[in-house]
Amino acid sequence: MINFALFGAGRIGSIHGNNVVKNKGARLLALHDPFAENADRLSSELGCEQMTAQQIFASDEIHAVLICSATDTHADLIEKAAAAGKHVFCEKPIDLSLPRVQQCMEKISRYDCKTMVAFNRRFDPHFQALQQQIAAGVVGEVEMVSIISKDPAPPPIEYIKLSGGLFRDMTIHDFDMARFLLAEKVVTVSAQASCQVDAAIGAAGDVDTAVITLATSSGKLAQISNSRRASFGYDQRIEVHGSAGMLTAQNVNENTVTVYNEAGVSSAKPLHFFLERYAEAYRCELDSFIRCLQGEPVEVPTMEDGLQALMLAEAALLSLQQGRTVNLSELG
Amino acid sequence: MINFALFGAGRIGSIHGNNVVKNKGARLLALHDPFAENADRLSSELGCEQMTAQQIFASDEIHAVLICSATDTHADLIEKAAAAGKHVFCEKPIDLSLPRVQQCMEKISRYDCKTMVAFNRRFDPHFQALQQQIAAGVVGEVEMVSIISKDPAPPPIEYIKLSGGLFRDMTIHDFDMARFLLAEKVVTVSAQASCQVDAAIGAAGDVDTAVITLATSSGKLAQISNSRRASFGYDQRIEVHGSAGMLTAQNVNENTVTVYNEAGVSSAKPLHFFLERYAEAYRCELDSFIRCLQGEPVEVPTMEDGLQALMLAEAALLSLQQGRTVNLSELG
Amino acid sequence: MINFALFGAGRIGSIHGNNVVKNKGARLLALHDPFAENADRLSSELGCEQMTAQQIFASDEIHAVLICSATDTHADLIEKAAAAGKHVFCEKPIDLSLPRVQQCMEKISRYDCKTMVAFNRRFDPHFQALQQQIAAGVVGEVEMVSIISKDPAPPPIEYIKLSGGLFRDMTIHDFDMARFLLAEKVVTVSAQASCQVDAAIGAAGDVDTAVITLATSSGKLAQISNSRRASFGYDQRIEVHGSAGMLTAQNVNENTVTVYNEAGVSSAKPLHFFLERYAEAYRCELDSFIRCLQGEPVEVPTMEDGLQALMLAEAALLSLQQGRTVNLSELG
Amino acid sequence: MINFALFGAGRIGSIHGNNVVKNKGARLLALHDPFAENADRLSSELGCEQMTAQQIFASDEIHAVLICSATDTHADLIEKAAAAGKHVFCEKPIDLSLPRVQQCMEKISRYDCKTMVAFNRRFDPHFQALQQQIAAGVVGEVEMVSIISKDPAPPPIEYIKLSGGLFRDMTIHDFDMARFLLAEKVVTVSAQASCQVDAAIGAAGDVDTAVITLATSSGKLAQISNSRRASFGYDQRIEVHGSAGMLTAQNVNENTVTVYNEAGVSSAKPLHFFLERYAEAYRCELDSFIRCLQGEPVEVPTMEDGLQALMLAEAALLSLQQGRTVNLSELG
Repeated sequence: MINFALFGAGRIGSIHGNNVVKNKGARLLALHDPFAENADRLSSELGCEQMTAQQIFASDEIHAVLICSATDTHADLIEKAAAAGKHVFCEKPIDLSLPRVQQCMEKISRYDCKTMVAFNRRFDPHFQALQQQIAAGVVGEVEMVSIISKDPAPPPIEYIKLSGGLFRDMTIHDFDMARFLLAEKVVTVSAQASCQVDAAIGAAGDVDTAVITLATSSGKLAQISNSRRASFGYDQRIEVHGSAGMLTAQNVNENTVTVYNEAGVSSAKPLHFFLERYAEAYRCELDSFIRCLQGEPVEVPTMEDGLQALMLAEAALLSLQQGRTVNLSELG
Repeated sequence: MINFALFGAGRIGSIHGNNVVKNKGARLLALHDPFAENADRLSSELGCEQMTAQQIFASDEIHAVLICSATDTHADLIEKAAAAGKHVFCEKPIDLSLPRVQQCMEKISRYDCKTMVAFNRRFDPHFQALQQQIAAGVVGEVEMVSIISKDPAPPPIEYIKLSGGLFRDMTIHDFDMARFLLAEKVVTVSAQASCQVDAAIGAAGDVDTAVITLATSSGKLAQISNSRRASFGYDQRIEVHGSAGMLTAQNVNENTVTVYNEAGVSSAKPLHFFLERYAEAYRCELDSFIRCLQGEPVEVPTMEDGLQALMLAEAALLSLQQGRTVNLSELG
Repeated sequence: MINFALFGAGRIGSIHGNNVVKNKGARLLALHDPFAENADRLSSELGCEQMTAQQIFASDEIHAVLICSATDTHADLIEKAAAAGKHVFCEKPIDLSLPRVQQCMEKISRYDCKTMVAFNRRFDPHFQALQQQIAAGVVGEVEMVSIISKDPAPPPIEYIKLSGGLFRDMTIHDFDMARFLLAEKVVTVSAQASCQVDAAIGAAGDVDTAVITLATSSGKLAQISNSRRASFGYDQRIEVHGSAGMLTAQNVNENTVTVYNEAGVSSAKPLHFFLERYAEAYRCELDSFIRCLQGEPVEVPTMEDGLQALMLAEAALLSLQQGRTVNLSELG
Repeated sequence: MINFALFGAGRIGSIHGNNVVKNKGARLLALHDPFAENADRLSSELGCEQMTAQQIFASDEIHAVLICSATDTHADLIEKAAAAGKHVFCEKPIDLSLPRVQQCMEKISRYDCKTMVAFNRRFDPHFQALQQQIAAGVVGEVEMVSIISKDPAPPPIEYIKLSGGLFRDMTIHDFDMARFLLAEKVVTVSAQASCQVDAAIGAAGDVDTAVITLATSSGKLAQISNSRRASFGYDQRIEVHGSAGMLTAQNVNENTVTVYNEAGVSSAKPLHFFLERYAEAYRCELDSFIRCLQGEPVEVPTMEDGLQALMLAEAALLSLQQGRTVNLSELG
């Protein structure tokens, strides 16, 4: 039985907290959130104690922590947790600053703790099935990966301002997915982007619509399409073109009902947003971490994966600013 | 908080028991199964006591019972539960004998208990969406309902022998669905059937492949297609043809991945059987019963629905035996 | 080069006439239609002569006739054509009267002419592909065939009155398709039907909505669903359930465009009616007849197929009138 | 009646020649091909004369020419045809050299002839329907266009060597489609590409797999994915993401049959290559040109469109060579 403590009682903290409670291999002993209202509500819902960070790190009963707090607290909490001998499950991104992430990784390298960065999409059953087909050689050598990733609507502009920008906040999931599927080192990044959804996003120095192209050492290509708005709901699709065929994973729809009438043929929309679309992915993600801690040979995304995805985001930003293809080696 | 006791710790008892445990509005206090191994396993899994039937009916704490035991015990347990002031959730069928069902209904009519017969498919989110579209008038007047219902493989021949035959055991779900969607009294039944899947089924006096046609008083038609075997998995689809259009609900597939290669285009199979396909339906079904007990205006299938579905099964059997259309009024 | 003459310059005559003209193996030498306006228009469009029936039968140059005139002239023209040594391509039905069809077949049996009854749907590329998969054993033994066949809107009531009724006029195509796919003698027919689309159809003694079930000697089942109205267009689908799987042929849509927006997901309707849906089937049908006349081993539907389909229609009518399953042997 | 002469009796000349012959508004009077075997075969098939180029240009009866000869003859023939007072339908590309195209356009600018460059995909019924939905505002403002365009297999290496490279030969269709759908001036081009399909293509200095991103003045983005090989057939799809929704046009499949069995669910492949996929597009394309010559207000792609597409190809090549985003203004 793995005992957890949870940092952050917001929306994503609530998802992971609930999944710990429902998992037969784990218990949630405590949570911490400086925002008392969130902390009270979630600790009551989940039937766990509230503790300070200090208490959590000092507790002998707690084996692992879930870091779902504000982004700028992640690296600190990771370091403290590692030093206290806790395993770490951390929401993305580790930090918005590349050097800070590298520093954090170096600091914890001396400790024997297991870490996982929460790239939940790797655990979506549809994308898992797709990746397994690649691994099984069903389409031969992967030659081109296409990732379509659009949110139903942009977040509040205050969120945008603190987000680190589209590439670090939203595309980071797609960078990780591209790496997961390409299974080969990405060497160049080229980004094109604009502000078409909301002028306020542009005024805040960010973009809301983007196309990013990655290339690996052997010439495999990946393209990512992003938009902060898709009026029909969360658009999360993947195509993989290989030497012997193509794989696609489509959106998951609300239901299978279709209406045929004089006006045409209409069917249900894709599941609206990540809470619905990735509910199962979140369950599987946490379950994988728990099984990993129990010693099973389960592959999970690591701090290194978090770092690599952030480097692609940095390269994309540089590419956009300078209107050129950026080689990852330039980032040092 | 509604307190439940469970009769029957087999496969379907386990489904409902688990759903009680996960439901925030209910608790499972006890279960009973004469087969000790089942009883031990499930009471341990669900963390509830084992009680005798007598203890369950005598307990003041228990508000409702889930009857998931062998079919020939259903009517008896319903009568005893009603007499003991318990609400009743009963697996289909109430009984294989029409007079016994009628007798049971008469006996409990004096008690003020709520009863529900577990026609789970009414609670499948896809079929619910379809029914709501009908109710919203999206296809005008319903004129023809088509229900396709096939199992992946036949049950053991021992099960077949005790099942009451295809119509009472399997088609009964489809009869209920047809009634649910037609929303008008069925007056005639015509059945055609044969034994094509397994000669042993024929030898046991049963059929394994059937087409049944229903007609209502105003001329609406419903057709049901059944087979005990579909090599590709559970085939559960509905079409509704109306004066202003058509509605379809398709199978739910294992995932959304499609492979395109030289051999063709291939995608995932339908969910394999009822445990997978109707997992969500079972959750919603029990939740509806709980909300109904809590006084919410939730519609659930009643003993009367159970009786009517059984009458259609009887009529289908008579139609098959006599090679003619049977009028429901003939059944008295 | 096969030289044709055409009887009937209406809508279906125009289709076949045009297909002769475009076929590299055939020429259209003449046409005849007592309705001068049609005859003038089509002979001018197709660049062929007008002849009397007598002239057509007397011409040494004409090898084959296309009979697309009014139904009550078919049998007569077939007999005269056969006597004159012409091959015959005849629109369905041969005649509305079973004895008349049998008489006609007997009369022409002494002549060495090739005959084809125009069951065009056998030549639809989609249904052809489906039938070839059956023949290739892809789904094992056929156990159940389901044919969905609905027109976009009912024909004028005057047409209905002369049509011979739904079964002889519309279902006859489906009876032929069922025979084609079952590939085994149908022995019983059971029909349920009602008038739900237009009360005038009922007043004319006909039905507009029907479900018909067929069974073969070995127990294979077929079900046919008919409606004279489908607001979304021509509904022409087939499902075949076999011992080793299922085959479906879906409607053909106007285009592949799908719109995703806040209101939902909508796509194009099925091709509106038979002119669009079966344009290719008509081409292939005539081409098959021509290749058959050229001595190629092409299978085409024969007079016998026309007779058998009509017998199923008669049996369905009897079943509907008497509320019972009818055995084909009852028809003599 | 528009009288045509055809230059080039190869595969594409045969398509257009046949479409002229079948079109009720046009006649094919003559063809010319220096390769006698081709000329003999096609003139016999189409029932037209063979003429020298000189005779064609001198003939008073010929109103328009179809230029389907080798690419390096296009510009010359266009100039001569224009000078001779003939209208011009020219296969893409006009020429592989940008200055040559510009020179040609300047030369013919003094003549009053109508010209059309054969971007056939604009006339595909599916893409037409998609474009009409854009024009009707169904998805609001266009923000991102995605074009997937892959051939089933690479052409012979000799063809590749003369083709002008992937961008000028294959992507040029996609550049035109992007321009057609964006309906706004493209200002930047960024290309990533590699040789993954066949090393011989790389050895010839070309690429076989590419991703190209375009941006317009207002920030609209387009992405094009190309491969010289798709094992499952011709892959021709379009997505348009707009402020109010998304439009997709899918591949057209060989038939609508689906097989469900133990192995999974499989359906037909996309139509294999351009002859099948764009047969209808070629018919509509030529018909549009004919109606244009007859004075109807039909929009067809012009020499200017041919020039613009070629400029995007040049810019893509420059972008690939220099690893940077290229501004169209750099091309002068």
